Amino acid sequence: MRALLRVPPGEPVDLTAYDTRATPGGPKGKAAGLAATAALGPGLAGLQERLYAASTAGDRRRLLLVLQGMDTSGKGGTVKHVIGHFNPSGCRIQAFKAPTEEERSHPFLWRIAKALPRPGEIGIFDRSHYEDVLIARVRSLAPAAELEARYGEIREFERSLAEDGVTVVKVFLHLSYEEQRDRLLERLDTPEKHWKFNPGDIEERALWPAYREAYELALERCSSAAPWYLVPADRKWYRNWAISTLLAEHLAELDPRYPPGDFDVAECRRRLLAQ
Amino acid sequence: MRALLRVPPGEPVDLTAYDTRATPGGPKGKAAGLAATAALGPGLAGLQERLYAASTAGDRRRLLLVLQGMDTSGKGGTVKHVIGHFNPSGCRIQAFKAPTEEERSHPFLWRIAKALPRPGEIGIFDRSHYEDVLIARVRSLAPAAELEARYGEIREFERSLAEDGVTVVKVFLHLSYEEQRDRLLERLDTPEKHWKFNPGDIEERALWPAYREAYELALERCSSAAPWYLVPADRKWYRNWAISTLLAEHLAELDPRYPPGDFDVAECRRRLLAQ
Repeated sequence: MRALLRVPPGEPVDLTAYDTRATPGGPKGKAAGLAATAALGPGLAGLQERLYAASTAGDRRRLLLVLQGMDTSGKGGTVKHVIGHFNPSGCRIQAFKAPTEEERSHPFLWRIAKALPRPGEIGIFDRSHYEDVLIARVRSLAPAAELEARYGEIREFERSLAEDGVTVVKVFLHLSYEEQRDRLLERLDTPEKHWKFNPGDIEERALWPAYREAYELALERCSSAAPWYLVPADRKWYRNWAISTLLAEHLAELDPRYPPGDFDVAECRRRLLAQ
Repeated sequence: MRALLRVPPGEPVDLTAYDTRATPGGPKGKAAGLAATAALGPGLAGLQERLYAASTAGDRRRLLLVLQGMDTSGKGGTVKHVIGHFNPSGCRIQAFKAPTEEERSHPFLWRIAKALPRPGEIGIFDRSHYEDVLIARVRSLAPAAELEARYGEIREFERSLAEDGVTVVKVFLHLSYEEQRDRLLERLDTPEKHWKFNPGDIEERALWPAYREAYELALERCSSAAPWYLVPADRKWYRNWAISTLLAEHLAELDPRYPPGDFDVAECRRRLLAQ
C-alpha cells in the first residue's frame, strides 16, 4: 500500500491526474472494505500497545499521522475512525484551527512542536504546519519570501522528527470539487449539521484552483524527510481502509516489543500471596 | 442511578460497608449488562455532539469525568471504554502520574487547571488532584498542615469549576483487596503484561488500610461542590455500565442544543449550486 499511495518525492505533482473515486489496492466494494477495515483493528491495537509498552523501557519511537485536505474531505471522520482501533489513552489528537494571537507571535512551527506525540504515543493532527503553506499561501497571510522559506523549514523540522524517532505519516485526502459540493449541500439540508456550516466555506471553495496548486507545491517540496500519501477520499470506506492499512504497515515495520520485566516474578508472586 | 451511587455528602464514609461486587441498579448479569451499555452508545454520542455544537455558539458548558481508585481498579479500562461511545476529537484525556519537577514547583492544582476540558468538550482524568490528598497523605509527601488545607482548596476549586460551566462527575472505583491481588497475579502470570507491573505496587498494597482511610476522608470532605459516586468495581461490565449511565444522566440534564445557523440557507444553496 505504501508504494501504491506514495507521492513520488521531488517530482512535480498534478492532482488532476489522480481519480478521487479510485480504490487503489483496496477491497472490492464497500461491504468488503468495511469488513477488511474492521479486521485490521485487533492487529493495530496490539501494535499500539507494544509501542506504548516499549516506551516504558526507554524506546523513544512514536508515530504521527498528519491529515490534510480540503473542507469536508473527511479529516474529522478519519480521526474518529482511526482512534476507534486504538486505546485513546495512548493517542494525542490535535486539531489546528486559525492560529491564536499568541500562536501568531511565535514561529509557525511553535504550536506544532508543542502538540507532538510523546514516546510510545500515536499522534493525530487534523490540519498541521502545512496550513502555513496552504491557506497562508492562497490568502497571502505572510510575505512571499517568508512563505517560500517555510518549505525548507518544514523539511528540516520533519528531518529532526525522524531523527528523534517520530515516524511521520502524511496523508492528503484527495476530494473532488463535485463531492465537496454534495457534502456541503448535505450540511445545508440538515438543520442538525448547520453548526458545521460556515458561509466562508463557499468563499474558500471559490479558490479551489489556488488551493490545488498550493497542495501540489507542498506535496512536491516537502517529501524528502517524510513521504506524502495521496488517498482518494470520495469514498469514505476506502479512505478508512487505506489509512488503517498505512498505519498497520508503518507500525509493523517499527515492530515494537514488549519489554522484559526487570523484577523477579516468583519472588513478587510469593510476596503477593503472603499479603 | 445518580441517587443510588452518590456518596451522602458531608457524612463520615465507611468503605467497608460497600460491597465491591454489588451491581446497584444494574442489569441482571454480564450479558444483559454488556447489551445495555452498548445500547447507551448512540444516545451518548448524540449528546456529546450537541454539547460540542452548542459550544461553537458560545455555550461554555462541559463535563469532566474524574476517575480515582486503587491500582488495577480499572481507571485505564474505563477511559478506553467510555471514549468508545464518543467522538474522541471532542474529548480531552489526561492521566496524572507522579508530578514532574516543574509540576512540584507549582501549587498542586496548577497541572490540573492546565488539563481541564474546553467548552463543549468531555474531559476524562485518570487520577487527579485527589492524589494530593491520597498518596500525598499516605506517604506524607507534604507537611500535615498543608495536606489539611488541600481539602478546602479542592472544594473551592470545584466550586469555581461549577460556576464556569464545568459539570464534574467524580467516580471512586471501589475494588476489593482480594480482587486486586487476583489482577496483580494475572499481570505477573502474563509476560505481555509485565510492563504494567511494578514491584512497588506490592508495597502500596501493603498500605491498603491507610489508602482506604485517605479515600474515606476525601469522599467525606470534598463533596460539597461536586458529588462523589461510588462504583463497585470488581465486575468490569457493571463498572462500564454504571459510568456510562452516570454520563448519560448528566449530559441529558445539561440538555445541550444544536445552535441555529446564522446564515441564509437558501442563499448559500444558490451560491453553492452556481459554483
